[in-house]
Amino acid sequence: MQLYDYFRSSAAYRVRIALNIKGIAYEPVPVNLRTGEQRLQDYLAVNPQALVPALRLPGGELLTQSLAICEYLEETHPEPPLLPAEPVARAQVRSLAGIVACDVHPLNNLRVLQYLVRELGVDEDAKLRWYRHWIERGLDAFEQALAAQGLTGAYCHAGGPSLADVCLIPQLFNARRFDCPLDAYPQVLRVEAACARLPAFADAHPEKQPDAG
Amino acid sequence: MQLYDYFRSSAAYRVRIALNIKGIAYEPVPVNLRTGEQRLQDYLAVNPQALVPALRLPGGELLTQSLAICEYLEETHPEPPLLPAEPVARAQVRSLAGIVACDVHPLNNLRVLQYLVRELGVDEDAKLRWYRHWIERGLDAFEQALAAQGLTGAYCHAGGPSLADVCLIPQLFNARRFDCPLDAYPQVLRVEAACARLPAFADAHPEKQPDAG
Repeated sequence: MQLYDYFRSSAAYRVRIALNIKGIAYEPVPVNLRTGEQRLQDYLAVNPQALVPALRLPGGELLTQSLAICEYLEETHPEPPLLPAEPVARAQVRSLAGIVACDVHPLNNLRVLQYLVRELGVDEDAKLRWYRHWIERGLDAFEQALAAQGLTGAYCHAGGPSLADVCLIPQLFNARRFDCPLDAYPQVLRVEAACARLPAFADAHPEKQPDAG
Repeated sequence: MQLYDYFRSSAAYRVRIALNIKGIAYEPVPVNLRTGEQRLQDYLAVNPQALVPALRLPGGELLTQSLAICEYLEETHPEPPLLPAEPVARAQVRSLAGIVACDVHPLNNLRVLQYLVRELGVDEDAKLRWYRHWIERGLDAFEQALAAQGLTGAYCHAGGPSLADVCLIPQLFNARRFDCPLDAYPQVLRVEAACARLPAFADAHPEKQPDAG
């Protein structure tokens, strides 16, 4: 498999973690979002949406959208699982993933920050407040959801790292990059510490990628 | 089942369609987002994230996040299916759903528009440009993905209405509400016309809901 990737892309980081958890070897194909490589003809021919990640399967098919890719990996490589077995528990894990993937990350990705600055003339200070506001709203929800589950295991859901952890950890990397205060999230920090000890998460870290720098 | 709902909520509209497709009877519990009912103590006790939809199961469990709810309905009520059987096709449908649910809708929902106006001082005209910009970017991607699939069926994916249609139709309702031009999207409009003929979609339309007005 080939993963069209960018070291700092939070959505690509999710897929790297999922591939590592599943033990699937892949070839990273870096697409430099900072210099705009995603809008060059070469990459638009791969993914007209000009976003990473995209996963090229051995048969040539291209998959896009990080959550769709993770669900595909779960269905085709069931072990170790990224989702629990029971439907309500699966919905809870997917809901946690959705807090990050639908309510936080879309508001803070590069193209949105660029629109704020270039089209709306937002200054650096207001851009940072925007960034932190949505992270704070999302992590508030995530922390409350974890607390409500009353779980005392290491990860977001009992049993092992799940799709919820796969989404949470890249979001926390972003939060730290932008100096968001995290003291109010003890459950989230507990999960982060547990995940950091797993090679699947550590090896997917942005600074470990070939295009980091 | 009880659905915490708001007639104009695009995410709630998705779940209404999914429930209707599955033939699951439910009791709507309207939460008026315009007057801020989602932030009153009564509703925060239901969903601390102050968002709709939320689905109360007969056993009392509460599910949140529209995509997680749709996946739950698919797993517990498999017929008629919202996802095709084959993994790559499932990923394609989920990817289309993700274009709407992760790349368009989060940028245009009420709390974000309110932030633009109240915190960033964005005027009505610039707010409208923001709204249309993200819809245009998303529908460009959606149209290209449909064209690339080369399908000539009535819906986003061969076989019947899927999770992709469930997400697309509410987004188009929003697009029309804000007068977004749709002429550039013939595949999308073809799907919209087909879905409009299905009672599951027609009955879920915002104007048909008890709290519409």
